[in-house]
Amino acid sequence: MALIVQKYGGTSVGTVERIEAVADKVAGFRDNGDDVVVVVSAMSGETNRLIAMAQEIMELPTPREMDVLLSTGEQVTIALLSMALEQRGCCARSFTGGQVRVLTDGSHTRARIREIDSSKIHGQLEQGNVVVVAGFQGVSEDGHITTLGRGGSDTTAVALAAALEADECQIYTDVKGVYTTDPRMVADARLLAHITFEEMLELASLGAKVLQIRAVEFAGKYKVPLRVLSSFEEGAGTLISLEENTDMETPTIAGIAFERDEAKLTVAGVPDIPGIAYEVIGPVSDAGIEVDVIVQNAAADGTNDITFTVKRSEAERTKAIVETVATRLKAAKVVLDKKIGKVSLVGVGMRSHAGIAAKMFKVLADESINIQLITTSEIKISVVIEEKYLELAVRALHSGFDLGDANYEEENTKN
Amino acid sequence: MALIVQKYGGTSVGTVERIEAVADKVAGFRDNGDDVVVVVSAMSGETNRLIAMAQEIMELPTPREMDVLLSTGEQVTIALLSMALEQRGCCARSFTGGQVRVLTDGSHTRARIREIDSSKIHGQLEQGNVVVVAGFQGVSEDGHITTLGRGGSDTTAVALAAALEADECQIYTDVKGVYTTDPRMVADARLLAHITFEEMLELASLGAKVLQIRAVEFAGKYKVPLRVLSSFEEGAGTLISLEENTDMETPTIAGIAFERDEAKLTVAGVPDIPGIAYEVIGPVSDAGIEVDVIVQNAAADGTNDITFTVKRSEAERTKAIVETVATRLKAAKVVLDKKIGKVSLVGVGMRSHAGIAAKMFKVLADESINIQLITTSEIKISVVIEEKYLELAVRALHSGFDLGDANYEEENTKN
Repeated sequence: MALIVQKYGGTSVGTVERIEAVADKVAGFRDNGDDVVVVVSAMSGETNRLIAMAQEIMELPTPREMDVLLSTGEQVTIALLSMALEQRGCCARSFTGGQVRVLTDGSHTRARIREIDSSKIHGQLEQGNVVVVAGFQGVSEDGHITTLGRGGSDTTAVALAAALEADECQIYTDVKGVYTTDPRMVADARLLAHITFEEMLELASLGAKVLQIRAVEFAGKYKVPLRVLSSFEEGAGTLISLEENTDMETPTIAGIAFERDEAKLTVAGVPDIPGIAYEVIGPVSDAGIEVDVIVQNAAADGTNDITFTVKRSEAERTKAIVETVATRLKAAKVVLDKKIGKVSLVGVGMRSHAGIAAKMFKVLADESINIQLITTSEIKISVVIEEKYLELAVRALHSGFDLGDANYEEENTKN
Repeated sequence: MALIVQKYGGTSVGTVERIEAVADKVAGFRDNGDDVVVVVSAMSGETNRLIAMAQEIMELPTPREMDVLLSTGEQVTIALLSMALEQRGCCARSFTGGQVRVLTDGSHTRARIREIDSSKIHGQLEQGNVVVVAGFQGVSEDGHITTLGRGGSDTTAVALAAALEADECQIYTDVKGVYTTDPRMVADARLLAHITFEEMLELASLGAKVLQIRAVEFAGKYKVPLRVLSSFEEGAGTLISLEENTDMETPTIAGIAFERDEAKLTVAGVPDIPGIAYEVIGPVSDAGIEVDVIVQNAAADGTNDITFTVKRSEAERTKAIVETVATRLKAAKVVLDKKIGKVSLVGVGMRSHAGIAAKMFKVLADESINIQLITTSEIKISVVIEEKYLELAVRALHSGFDLGDANYEEENTKN
């Protein structure tokens, strides 16, 4: 018998039928003797419907009132799911964020959780009830309704699991778990049974988009074992936890992430003096543009090239900013390249395994793919290449590092 | 400068455009220097949409969860209306029933208000904000969300007005106010400028359906001046208050109500002994059937006829119950008549004016309308007649008692 916090997203509760399917699943855990706390999002489409009404009234709706409005979305779901559970003979009680209470700061539409009062939930569990909590929302010290921003339901679930000292926090979604890479790109991409928080953070931020980064950080910080699994299909999904997998079979590489919506800017021929990187990147950051990869390389002639990437949608705006800087610095030129792709290998095993980078470069060289930029961290190596080679690079690396299903038949049949 | 509580029902806030029209109206009162507290219902159609989802899940949804579900309806409206006010430069803050707080008992889906904490609202008003409150909902001592049952928004408004000691409680609806009778039946039905609580109670319960009876009772008890007026048209509407109108022009009769959805049952030839009315009516009440008019008349032969009316939809069920009783009592027969109509004259002036009843009977006799039953109270006389004469009776009485517009041209042009 375990205490499990489960979170079901908007697609998983998108219709009355799907809510009933979730109720079946939850009832199964209860029958199994587990205590269950369920966190739900708004039914898919509902949040957009509410936002559309607000925007008919004002372009930038008052944040305080936006939270009052949007928090109704999850409140509808908790009521319907509790009814569906009761209908199955499974006693259930719903709670809004304010009722739990999920205490947040007062930053409307992007509040951060400060504290969760777990006593009421523990009391309900002791009475044998399933507790159904509205995700994404909380209440400020002054009693105002707040929301955590989109995707905040994952964070609610993890925070609740931490406060309740739950055995596991399960995030139900529309994929079976975390894969070695995007299965739409690589047919034999393998479902990972286990991954560390650090690896998940790198994979999520690089585009795996299975979980909210914030929730993963939270789970890592409070050491809450996190499991990603499908609402619609059977399977144990992917467990995300602190421990590295210590099997002999442990792959050095957990997965391959990639991005194709970035653009690369190079400011060539700037003086090779201290503070030059700040001179170039500072104004870009000040404009609220997020900079991803940054590489600086001093030439023998006393000048310097600074190259960095930003979201492709910000490319032109960034170029305008950088050109002003370049003129002032008397740089040789500014080059914008939108046709790039980024591929990253992620794995905690890299720490203890030399030669991963070398092998990566060799695999790409064998396919005649030119590497434009390289950045490394302890558990990640990223390369920027010409966009048209992106699929080829991901497939070659996936196979070169033996990540595919063919090499894990035994593990695969377990799932 | 006055403190006004305004309530806008579902039709008045049924679309974003209508919410904006309400905001315009409220902003007008603010510009005039009034303090305004606005109570709103769910957008029309929303409550039915939510109920339909709940009933897909369970036939009789858990009352506690039903309240969690339905209370989202008004929460959406308070947020949107507050945004619309802010958009007009009119500072506004929304509050759910739980936030105000509107403390109720724990009877889910039909809770009764126990207490309202007016301090938070007074604080907001002092800061120059319009306060927008979700009607229909409250919170129990244990922090559970409750609802007051359908139409409860009127009650919320009156209770708030009482707690805040407001100068007036205005109920905005889709009619211009309270008329001498249904304008759809009598073309020159006159809008009443003023009516007493007692008269309103008699008119509402007899079918005028402008206001929730419960709200009128509440207003009368706490002496809150209540005004019914249109959201869509200009006009001062009808003021409902304690004071009788003392103008020389005061009509003795306030209005004429009528019902056509009743049925009449007669148990003829029951023994004329004590307790016989209870023997007949008791089982009907026990079955949860509401009995309206009851008339008993002892005959000279030592038997008795008992006649009463019920909702027409309950007629057959009532007949079955009464027939069992009749057999036991050895009554002569049970007669069911579904083709009846009831017409009532209402007016506090009756107390001091003799001859109203006689005049009513004469007006009906002049039209050759036979009266089947008569009941009277201090401020009301009701007669039951054959249904096909209902319109004729109402029109004849309306004109016979000089209630029409023609006699009040001056007053009419004021509105």
